[in-house]
Amino acid sequence: MQIEIQITAERIATNIYPPPAGVGAIAEFSGRVRGEENGQAIAALEYEAYSPMAERVMRDIIMEIGVRHPCLFVRVTHRTGIVPVGESAIHIVTAARHRAEAFAMLTEFMDRLKQDVPIWKRRAFSDAELNALQKS
Amino acid sequence: MQIEIQITAERIATNIYPPPAGVGAIAEFSGRVRGEENGQAIAALEYEAYSPMAERVMRDIIMEIGVRHPCLFVRVTHRTGIVPVGESAIHIVTAARHRAEAFAMLTEFMDRLKQDVPIWKRRAFSDAELNALQKS
Repeated sequence: MQIEIQITAERIATNIYPPPAGVGAIAEFSGRVRGEENGQAIAALEYEAYSPMAERVMRDIIMEIGVRHPCLFVRVTHRTGIVPVGESAIHIVTAARHRAEAFAMLTEFMDRLKQDVPIWKRRAFSDAELNALQKS
Repeated sequence: MQIEIQITAERIATNIYPPPAGVGAIAEFSGRVRGEENGQAIAALEYEAYSPMAERVMRDIIMEIGVRHPCLFVRVTHRTGIVPVGESAIHIVTAARHRAEAFAMLTEFMDRLKQDVPIWKRRAFSDAELNALQKS
């Protein structure tokens, strides 16, 4: 485990979006494609979304979680198409007054995403398949 | 609650550090100074650290949590001195194969930080006090 610790008098850059007033906690999650899927080495995953419905369902999930864990800001970005190893398929930012709500929104949303949202892994690509695709 | 949802075929930028191989999950938290402290309007907080010990304790906490929730990478940055409203006092990034470990390290570290690490809020500044200080 690589550990880096810095105590600094310099400004910490977190200019990730224009924050609403009152934000005390910002939590983020990125889900990246790893180099293996079900024990097989892969080079990329292809994601497919039924986009209008996926957007609506994600919004509904956020509103529902927000009743219990009020947040000031939530941004979800989900990538579709072929996502190479090491790149992010999903990114979510939550902001709230206190960290408990920001964390709860982040973790509960991620639990619900795979369960309820019509976005799926269409297929995995090996190195050779990805190379062939990029040449075609 | 402001909600932004995007489903995109574009690359999602999360180039926040050079990631170790095998990372599937990156979680981040930023703790920002809010405009009030114990019900009083404030303009800034001053943080003081007993730095060598704070760094050692943070490293010990991360190692201890890492036994239960193995991560590949953890970076903690804590700011000291006067931190104005809207700026971050603490930032932590955790990376692991799967999101459960990355989330657990993030949330458990934050719980332990305030409890065990010799970094404390020295005092709050009002607008007038902060202005006077900046002019002096």
